[in-house]
Amino acid sequence: MQIKGVNLGNWLVLEKWMSPALFEGTTAEDEYYLPTQLSKEVYEARIKVHRSEYITERDFAIIKSHHMNAVRIPVPYFIFGDCPPFLGCIEELDKAFGWAEKYGLQILIDLHTVPGSQNGFDNGGISGVCTWAQDPKKVEFTLELLEKLARRYGTRAGLLGIEIVNEPLTAAAWDSFNIQERYKPVDEALGKQSRPVEMAFLRNFYVDAYRKIRKYMPVEKSVVIHDGFDFLAWKDFMQETEFENVILDTHQYLMMAEMAGCAQSVEGYVNFVKENYEEEIKEMSRYFPVICGEWCLFNSYACGHDTKGGQSVLNGMEGVEAEAFTMEEKKVIYQELAKAQLQAWNAGNGYFYWNYKLLLDTVSESSWIGWDAWDFDKCVAQGWFPVEHA
Amino acid sequence: MQIKGVNLGNWLVLEKWMSPALFEGTTAEDEYYLPTQLSKEVYEARIKVHRSEYITERDFAIIKSHHMNAVRIPVPYFIFGDCPPFLGCIEELDKAFGWAEKYGLQILIDLHTVPGSQNGFDNGGISGVCTWAQDPKKVEFTLELLEKLARRYGTRAGLLGIEIVNEPLTAAAWDSFNIQERYKPVDEALGKQSRPVEMAFLRNFYVDAYRKIRKYMPVEKSVVIHDGFDFLAWKDFMQETEFENVILDTHQYLMMAEMAGCAQSVEGYVNFVKENYEEEIKEMSRYFPVICGEWCLFNSYACGHDTKGGQSVLNGMEGVEAEAFTMEEKKVIYQELAKAQLQAWNAGNGYFYWNYKLLLDTVSESSWIGWDAWDFDKCVAQGWFPVEHA
Repeated sequence: MQIKGVNLGNWLVLEKWMSPALFEGTTAEDEYYLPTQLSKEVYEARIKVHRSEYITERDFAIIKSHHMNAVRIPVPYFIFGDCPPFLGCIEELDKAFGWAEKYGLQILIDLHTVPGSQNGFDNGGISGVCTWAQDPKKVEFTLELLEKLARRYGTRAGLLGIEIVNEPLTAAAWDSFNIQERYKPVDEALGKQSRPVEMAFLRNFYVDAYRKIRKYMPVEKSVVIHDGFDFLAWKDFMQETEFENVILDTHQYLMMAEMAGCAQSVEGYVNFVKENYEEEIKEMSRYFPVICGEWCLFNSYACGHDTKGGQSVLNGMEGVEAEAFTMEEKKVIYQELAKAQLQAWNAGNGYFYWNYKLLLDTVSESSWIGWDAWDFDKCVAQGWFPVEHA
Repeated sequence: MQIKGVNLGNWLVLEKWMSPALFEGTTAEDEYYLPTQLSKEVYEARIKVHRSEYITERDFAIIKSHHMNAVRIPVPYFIFGDCPPFLGCIEELDKAFGWAEKYGLQILIDLHTVPGSQNGFDNGGISGVCTWAQDPKKVEFTLELLEKLARRYGTRAGLLGIEIVNEPLTAAAWDSFNIQERYKPVDEALGKQSRPVEMAFLRNFYVDAYRKIRKYMPVEKSVVIHDGFDFLAWKDFMQETEFENVILDTHQYLMMAEMAGCAQSVEGYVNFVKENYEEEIKEMSRYFPVICGEWCLFNSYACGHDTKGGQSVLNGMEGVEAEAFTMEEKKVIYQELAKAQLQAWNAGNGYFYWNYKLLLDTVSESSWIGWDAWDFDKCVAQGWFPVEHA
């Protein structure tokens, strides 16, 4: 199966910049601190209305109509409702399976957060903190959680597979992400305990998780492992016959190309994607089916200024005052980039666009100009993303 | 201008069946009683998150991509925030103008509710009550409100026009809607005071409102009057030269055809639309530009049972257990109906589909099977609505 999919990010795992109204009146930068600044009633009201409106049955019909065949659904570690004050969301995932099966889409369940966080990103549960791997109890909780997900959905027709854990931040990318600066921890002491997820730990964890999941999930369903931002490091991993239908997931954003020194121009991006992303995907496809589980058309060039690797007003970085390009010019830029990126992902086993939907307002808040390239439907609507040929 | 548009219903004026989560844990059937059963904080949290998520910039890009050129935006009488406990929503309308102007859409502002209600529908502000026209103070409030809207938006590039008041229920349709049964009033005494809006009153009101609005709105912008469900009664109205660019709006649903005795079959609907709706639109087009400001593909036949004029579980009417038709069969049915209806509306000056979006879940709640034909984007996604040829 060649995967053509979108991520349903910000539905069950929040990102402040994607739906700022949920965070209104608080200084919380992430989902972890949101309930500490709202009454229980208001917190629950916001979360429940958000979940009931952000993604519904109609979105599955729309995604299907855009020639996609899969969705990747980020879920939080508190999905089963056993970690107050956070509200569980297993009913939402249940519904999603009904919708996916009705409209002919496959779901990749993506465990997007774990207790203590595996990366310290704002979308990793708690900003600036990366301590999960150091605590055996939290690791054990995570293994049990994965097993519960596999038991509940393992044989569902609408299941594509389960991704063990999203974006564990290993030493390879630790310095370049510089999370303590980019996502400042609220609790400095906790921030200081943060360390990269060790490769040796991650390998063991993936094997343990594979065995837990596979017990309840037939081999037609995939186990997906994220590369920990160290794509080429997995050539000697899980090559034994015990491990069946394991997909390697790599996330490749143009802003990461920029951080690696890529020229901020269409030609620069296209060459970088071709020479680096596409080549590496070809190389790693000898060992695993490879997907690009997160990518998008966003880039500094189309924004009209250097975003320093995708930093926004949330990171204290100002945006531009006005569009740098006309709508026709932007269309040409994005179409070129889409072509190059899709070609790279299709050298492997496909992709999931990040993200299906965001609630940005680029008209009322000019600082978000250019950021709507993260919104798949908006890209489709404006002809930036060529759904017919993707 | 031939109007091709959609209604942004349930964004600023709620309808319970379209986003049930907003009403969860209450027995309120309409927006009027919702804040009486929730704390101020929870009410505000629900409404604010709903408004921030239901319609955003991306929807304007999507609507434009579906070859539409206009949106009709229902607004409540408390839009300016001067009727506690209801929350004003003028900022949302301001934003909508920015989005419309960016993506090249025109906005028809539709005053959808008035104090005391002009129709007693659940979407008219207060179910089972129709007393507005009897109270001169409420009528005066409404005229001032219309003037304020015209003053604020009258010269905006994104303004198509202002519709004076949505669906005033006159004697012609009073018995067939039978609102006291269909939308039972909470306050029986108030229900008993309800009476049809008198034609003589309505004509005077339209003239007064026209003069208030036109003061601030150049003649390129339209004043839209709803026919009060008495379409042919307006031949001698506003034909004088004083009244410029007045559009007559009629709402024509297939469920209303059913109530008038139309056979529940594709042939039955097509013939009824052709012989009645299309002919009447042609007739009235001699007096006004005519639009069909609300219609949709919904019908009992595709639902698989007689809905008795579009009554749902909310009216105590059970739905079906399973789909009566395959997806392919439904597509054929809806395409035929769309063709006939679009031909009728285009015999006049176009249309607004009702509605752009709903949050129905037909998978988890089978009683809503068939009701997703009210959702424009879902109709487009499933090929029910031929956007390219509309």
